[in-house]
Amino acid sequence: MTTAHTLGTLGEQAVLARIFPRLPHAASAIIGPGDDAAVLATPDGRTVVTTDMMVHGPDFRLAWSSPYDLGWKAAATNLADVAAMGAAPTALVVALAVPVDTPVDALERFADGLRDACDALAPSCGVVGGDLSVTDTMTIAVTAFGDLAGAAPVLRSGARPGDVVAVAGDLALAAAGIRLLFAEAVDAHGMPDADAAARLAERHPEELRAQLRPSPPITLGVVAARAGATAMLDVSDGLALDARRIARASGVALDLRLADVGSPEALEGGEAHALLATFPPEGALPEGFRPIGLVVEGESVLVDGEPYARLGGWDPYADWNGARG
Amino acid sequence: MTTAHTLGTLGEQAVLARIFPRLPHAASAIIGPGDDAAVLATPDGRTVVTTDMMVHGPDFRLAWSSPYDLGWKAAATNLADVAAMGAAPTALVVALAVPVDTPVDALERFADGLRDACDALAPSCGVVGGDLSVTDTMTIAVTAFGDLAGAAPVLRSGARPGDVVAVAGDLALAAAGIRLLFAEAVDAHGMPDADAAARLAERHPEELRAQLRPSPPITLGVVAARAGATAMLDVSDGLALDARRIARASGVALDLRLADVGSPEALEGGEAHALLATFPPEGALPEGFRPIGLVVEGESVLVDGEPYARLGGWDPYADWNGARG
Repeated sequence: MTTAHTLGTLGEQAVLARIFPRLPHAASAIIGPGDDAAVLATPDGRTVVTTDMMVHGPDFRLAWSSPYDLGWKAAATNLADVAAMGAAPTALVVALAVPVDTPVDALERFADGLRDACDALAPSCGVVGGDLSVTDTMTIAVTAFGDLAGAAPVLRSGARPGDVVAVAGDLALAAAGIRLLFAEAVDAHGMPDADAAARLAERHPEELRAQLRPSPPITLGVVAARAGATAMLDVSDGLALDARRIARASGVALDLRLADVGSPEALEGGEAHALLATFPPEGALPEGFRPIGLVVEGESVLVDGEPYARLGGWDPYADWNGARG
Repeated sequence: MTTAHTLGTLGEQAVLARIFPRLPHAASAIIGPGDDAAVLATPDGRTVVTTDMMVHGPDFRLAWSSPYDLGWKAAATNLADVAAMGAAPTALVVALAVPVDTPVDALERFADGLRDACDALAPSCGVVGGDLSVTDTMTIAVTAFGDLAGAAPVLRSGARPGDVVAVAGDLALAAAGIRLLFAEAVDAHGMPDADAAARLAERHPEELRAQLRPSPPITLGVVAARAGATAMLDVSDGLALDARRIARASGVALDLRLADVGSPEALEGGEAHALLATFPPEGALPEGFRPIGLVVEGESVLVDGEPYARLGGWDPYADWNGARG
């Protein structure tokens, strides 16, 4: 009989000694984990910085996401924010709070997910520091850094009438995944259920992978910047909602073609972390981007020329309902 | 009769619109909050990066800390980690998760605490980005950045036999504060109690301020580096425990003089965020530092020449007891 080590039985130094070797190495690390702070090479003289928090309940359920999935997704979503500025990800710092009885094995799987996501999506990026805490509500906070390599950052505010609206990455699968999970990966009381999720994953592997372990087109962020993208963001709350953010910041309207978007689900799908960008009308779109609309005068989102009145995505406060499990 | 707005009733955009104007401005911000990521000036070509998470329960109690206190402390503790590398703090990103029924006023007070701590401790530092989430367990994750201005970072690993061990900042007050809170700011069942904490604060204002709203000597980090500090950290878990970290990383022993440390409580006090540093024996200590011991051969912590066997501070996993409220 073996006893699994937990955070509470092993103590801080021993836990960190098991996790550090699994973390992905950052090519930019001058001083990595282990001191009061890391030191990161930022040869451009500017650094792109973004942070995002994932909370058990509103952002993930342990019945549906493995620790490996969570490490992967925490990395991928932050890498997408760096890419959406037109930068190449260089490093992550990761703060993680878990219940004190969490097996150390689970933390190792989480680190493996961070490593594999960096290896797959942004190979020179790695983890340069972090923090590990105890909590009743598992919470993950990742801060990601990026290198603009001399280029101007691509903001949300640069779209101009006449620009082409284009997207790279899938819009609908992640949304289908969360819809399927809420509909079918629950028990008789509507609570998230791991066995039902495992059965669902056999029938809908692509949808669940897109939701639980997304692979945004990270390298296309720099590609879009080099191609002259005038505005860009990653679609994290829903295409229409995020398109409206570009519209407002730029003082324009984005007119989307439903036929090119693909489906009403794609129009409101969140968490896909596709890159939504606008490009000048002259010149071809860079490989990986497909056109889905046009920038026109106005200050809103249109679909096939008609104002789109729905929110078009997920509001993390107004839409949160703890009773859903 | 007025109804206080909460996160749940106001929605994300409206909440952020109320918080952004209160955040401290960072002189280093090229692009501040509001896009996918911020862009930070890092003219040195290197950036110091540190992250820290504070969780309701193990790290703070809302019965004892006001939202203002929490904003202040979250900034101060991360600024101390930057200072402990010998760097000047340049920016913060702040991820905050709070219950959905949290009044927006409380978030404004939190932002005020961040601002006032930056203004008081590191005036050119400000908030360049963040994230706001909902949770059942209030959690704060801050990532801080610093500028080495051409100097080498001061690590934990550079202490050499013969160096002077010195400290800047108070060692005992914050520890006395948490001891007093657990002893006297509780109700008949031993649970944290706000009224009792308010009465305690009238009798022991310095101890409670040191614990709940600490003012580490941030500017002395750069001063120590310029004076040739060979190793440095901020005392966050207890003097003896943190001294042992320098000893292990440097392959030396730190022999502390109890008379100069001040008291057994100062020897084990955590969360004071004093700067503990070692300096070459030649040359005077920089102003603000006082000698408390010597670096000698070995690999441990001694007190008045005798090995110190106690842990000497706080282990965040092994010592966490949720039943304490």
